[in-house]
Amino acid sequence: MAAIPAEQVKALRDKTGAGFMECKAALAEAAGDIEEATTILRKRGLAQAAKKVGRSTQQGQIGAYIHAGGRIGVLIEVNCESDFVARTPDFQSLVKELAMQVAAADPKYVRREDVPAEEVERERAIYRAQMENQGKPAKVLDKIVDGKLNSFYERVALLDQPSIRDQNVKVSALIAQAVAKVGENITVSRFARFKVGEAA
Amino acid sequence: MAAIPAEQVKALRDKTGAGFMECKAALAEAAGDIEEATTILRKRGLAQAAKKVGRSTQQGQIGAYIHAGGRIGVLIEVNCESDFVARTPDFQSLVKELAMQVAAADPKYVRREDVPAEEVERERAIYRAQMENQGKPAKVLDKIVDGKLNSFYERVALLDQPSIRDQNVKVSALIAQAVAKVGENITVSRFARFKVGEAA
Repeated sequence: MAAIPAEQVKALRDKTGAGFMECKAALAEAAGDIEEATTILRKRGLAQAAKKVGRSTQQGQIGAYIHAGGRIGVLIEVNCESDFVARTPDFQSLVKELAMQVAAADPKYVRREDVPAEEVERERAIYRAQMENQGKPAKVLDKIVDGKLNSFYERVALLDQPSIRDQNVKVSALIAQAVAKVGENITVSRFARFKVGEAA
Repeated sequence: MAAIPAEQVKALRDKTGAGFMECKAALAEAAGDIEEATTILRKRGLAQAAKKVGRSTQQGQIGAYIHAGGRIGVLIEVNCESDFVARTPDFQSLVKELAMQVAAADPKYVRREDVPAEEVERERAIYRAQMENQGKPAKVLDKIVDGKLNSFYERVALLDQPSIRDQNVKVSALIAQAVAKVGENITVSRFARFKVGEAA
């Protein structure tokens, strides 16, 4: 029987609420696979069904904003390092501002790195095709494609968008200002934006 | 060249804002594939980039609810047939009630049909394993498994959950009551529930 690292046993205990020895035995049986070990514990009645303990590793706030008489709604999670900062008016007004930004400017992703590679490649191919037969040198063409891709990111990535209040300030700069004010790192982890009827 | 159905041309026009003849030609070139035809139009500069016209086919409201001082947030889309009904207090209080239900009772899906088949199968296997070696007849075993599966749906499927206000009333019954009041069909199309830190 292979040795089971203590941190794996701990992770399984946190997840299932089962005892130390039971978790260790289940992990040995599952060759260290946490999912499989969870299933083993559940079969033995030693773990809670569908229970996610999921300890919060970050502080922050969930913000919501309802727009256009309930036809558009936004939910956003903004994180900081301490609960103390999460409760400050500076932080909370940033959360509200970001929720309104998502409602008005309709980004698809938080960061430009979140855009799937295939989508970026498709955009590039489209820009290149649009400029075919214009006799432009390859170097110039590449620069134009990069420029267009940048505008694409400014449409689809929240942090790259210009603020809805001041087109000269990027959303990432708004966040940087708040970081300077509250003295903690601030990140946006996710958002959802619903518009009536679009899911159908 | 194959004939392109008029409704396909219309769908592409709605999606891209391009002209009738351009859409027809692009569809012919793409052998009727709307995605491909959109890319063709975009390459020709005839379609707006990243523009989704997406006409709303349903009325309704987006509701939001923030719980526990901003540590939990819910966004929900509830649909009805007319904008008139969407603006009634009866409908709006149902939307609010459902958002609070999601915040408090943490469902994972709207309907029991939305639970993936593999997840249902895994639950069944766990329930069966829990009762092995108890010498129960197969018929009895099946009934017990069905009963446990029912409790599982009552935990994870919003419409199957007991109302947080009255454990004897299912959420689906709350909706049925509202349908009777407003005289229109009402459906829940989706929800999102964020809890601070769980995304990390």
